[in-house]
Amino acid sequence: MSLNYQQAGVDYAKIDPLKILAQRAAAETAGNLARHGLTEVAASRGESAYVIDCGDFHLASITECLGTKALVADAMRALIGVGSGRTYYDQIAQDTLAMAINDLITVGATPVAVHAYWAAGGSDWFDDAARARDLVEGWKAACDRCGVAWGGGETPALAGVIAEGRIDLAASCVGIVRPKSRLTLGDKLAAGDAIVLLESSGIHANGISLARKLAGRLPGGYATRLADGMTFGEALLVPTLLYSPVTEALAAAGIVPHYCANITGHGWRKLMRHPGSFAYRISKLPPVPPVLAFMQREIGADAREAYGNLNMGAGFALYVDASDAQRTVDIAARCGVRAHVAGRVEAGAKQVVIEPLDLEFGGDDLHVRA
Amino acid sequence: MSLNYQQAGVDYAKIDPLKILAQRAAAETAGNLARHGLTEVAASRGESAYVIDCGDFHLASITECLGTKALVADAMRALIGVGSGRTYYDQIAQDTLAMAINDLITVGATPVAVHAYWAAGGSDWFDDAARARDLVEGWKAACDRCGVAWGGGETPALAGVIAEGRIDLAASCVGIVRPKSRLTLGDKLAAGDAIVLLESSGIHANGISLARKLAGRLPGGYATRLADGMTFGEALLVPTLLYSPVTEALAAAGIVPHYCANITGHGWRKLMRHPGSFAYRISKLPPVPPVLAFMQREIGADAREAYGNLNMGAGFALYVDASDAQRTVDIAARCGVRAHVAGRVEAGAKQVVIEPLDLEFGGDDLHVRA
Repeated sequence: MSLNYQQAGVDYAKIDPLKILAQRAAAETAGNLARHGLTEVAASRGESAYVIDCGDFHLASITECLGTKALVADAMRALIGVGSGRTYYDQIAQDTLAMAINDLITVGATPVAVHAYWAAGGSDWFDDAARARDLVEGWKAACDRCGVAWGGGETPALAGVIAEGRIDLAASCVGIVRPKSRLTLGDKLAAGDAIVLLESSGIHANGISLARKLAGRLPGGYATRLADGMTFGEALLVPTLLYSPVTEALAAAGIVPHYCANITGHGWRKLMRHPGSFAYRISKLPPVPPVLAFMQREIGADAREAYGNLNMGAGFALYVDASDAQRTVDIAARCGVRAHVAGRVEAGAKQVVIEPLDLEFGGDDLHVRA
Repeated sequence: MSLNYQQAGVDYAKIDPLKILAQRAAAETAGNLARHGLTEVAASRGESAYVIDCGDFHLASITECLGTKALVADAMRALIGVGSGRTYYDQIAQDTLAMAINDLITVGATPVAVHAYWAAGGSDWFDDAARARDLVEGWKAACDRCGVAWGGGETPALAGVIAEGRIDLAASCVGIVRPKSRLTLGDKLAAGDAIVLLESSGIHANGISLARKLAGRLPGGYATRLADGMTFGEALLVPTLLYSPVTEALAAAGIVPHYCANITGHGWRKLMRHPGSFAYRISKLPPVPPVLAFMQREIGADAREAYGNLNMGAGFALYVDASDAQRTVDIAARCGVRAHVAGRVEAGAKQVVIEPLDLEFGGDDLHVRA
């Protein structure tokens, strides 16, 4: 077993041709906006959210899904017993919203409205009052934390499409970039900029297929105790941090990042997400959450596999003017998010250099654009 | 067998408590918008799309899914043979977008951006070039027809969440209401207004669970021939009409409907979707698509069951000033959509009166609000 998506059951080589076809077709629809007196911000193609120029401000939008983390919540609930009253659905509700919101804010947008997409494998799914209540309460709490309005959503019962007893959780989010100077598509990124890493709370919602495979192999499964006393399952279910309070606080303080990267799939390779040619030199590592250290050890993954696929303690990267770096860390801390001035942007061929680990990822190690 | 959702496997009595909980929690998040200098248009709660007042214009957003119609496409492809080259995924791509766009336009919005959500039961789903190409091409064609930009999307492989070999298709859509006077939340609806019904192309994407159950009971299954020579399966897969070209053309001609209803689940009961107390008297029926006439006959449903659950030839209702009624029909025709001045709005207790069928639905027959 290795920290490899294909071995965990997701074969990107099969998905990528459709993805590229879709990205090309999508790009060709840009001209449709002219009918409405609008234009797309072309640089947002390939970034984490789509941006339209609306004159007075930019409009950003996105749809994201939770992935398979609900399967962990279901397994843990079965393990601790339904009688415990814990369902973990309040926590995975936050994860789902974080997947959308943390992507949307990378372009400099303030999230303003979200829609829920909760598609169940049959009507019976909804016939569980505790789980339904947790899902709703967790969703609302995350909306309130991010200052976003919950506009509505869909709760279909799709027997035959969704697996029986399961639910597919996704979220769409709309945001505004106002003033337009808050747009962070990377045109201001320059050698000398500081890389500030915001800590993660754990695995977040990427690498879950790997974690589920590992749980199946452990004698104790999800009940296996980690170094900090939590069970593996509980640790996996610590919800993804919501980073929009940080980006909003930065804006309020007059700090506009030169670029942002949400560290999800592809782990630290995402640090070189920017389309330009820069080297990203990391000199300080955030602490590795016990659940990720445990996974790395149990799987026997080396640093390249671990940092190339998991967040390893860094949930979000802000690229800021070096003179703003420490203030960025301080503002994040005031929002309850630990952050580190972890490295700097340099001129040179695209690569991520992680000095404390003597590790490099070259530009060929990341493909996120058509 | 009857035309009843519960018998078709969808038990709204189980889903509604969560829906109501979610709607109440969502409504409580409205105040979050004040942080961004925005306000929600409260009257949009309970309507088909969520609306935020952005000063110069209104922003509308929505997420919708296809339901189980992909299962019909899969069955038909298996029936006619993969060698035929037909996958029907171009057609259900249009259905998926229509579910979102036809809802969004009810509030008077111009759809500007959509995101695709295509969640498959495993990476293998994407490993079918013909189907992938059709899905992408159908999606793009529908975007072009509606003048909307395809902003991006998600194509996750979710083994264990989505049923093996299946795909969950959904769309999110963002629109703008500009000028703001185009907002059609129903405050102008009045006795004397005309009800213009836009024809449907067939079953659209509601009532599919019933149709699938019926197919399973027919000796010829989806291959059963209808009166017009089409097979039942082919007829079911005629894509949902996209009505945004009509609403855009009406706006260009200076006609602002007083209200709009997208006729989906609950069939013609949706004609009384408006929150106020009005009677909706229908004096003329659009032709019933052969596939719906066939379903009604085969199931042995009476008019109340058929019109109370299926669109029966009417896909979208426009409530307009009586003096605009004929011009509305003419404009729709120029967009390639047949329409009929089918009835009028009257003062009185909430009800739908379908005179040609001697049929009435009372206000208690429709529950779409928390």
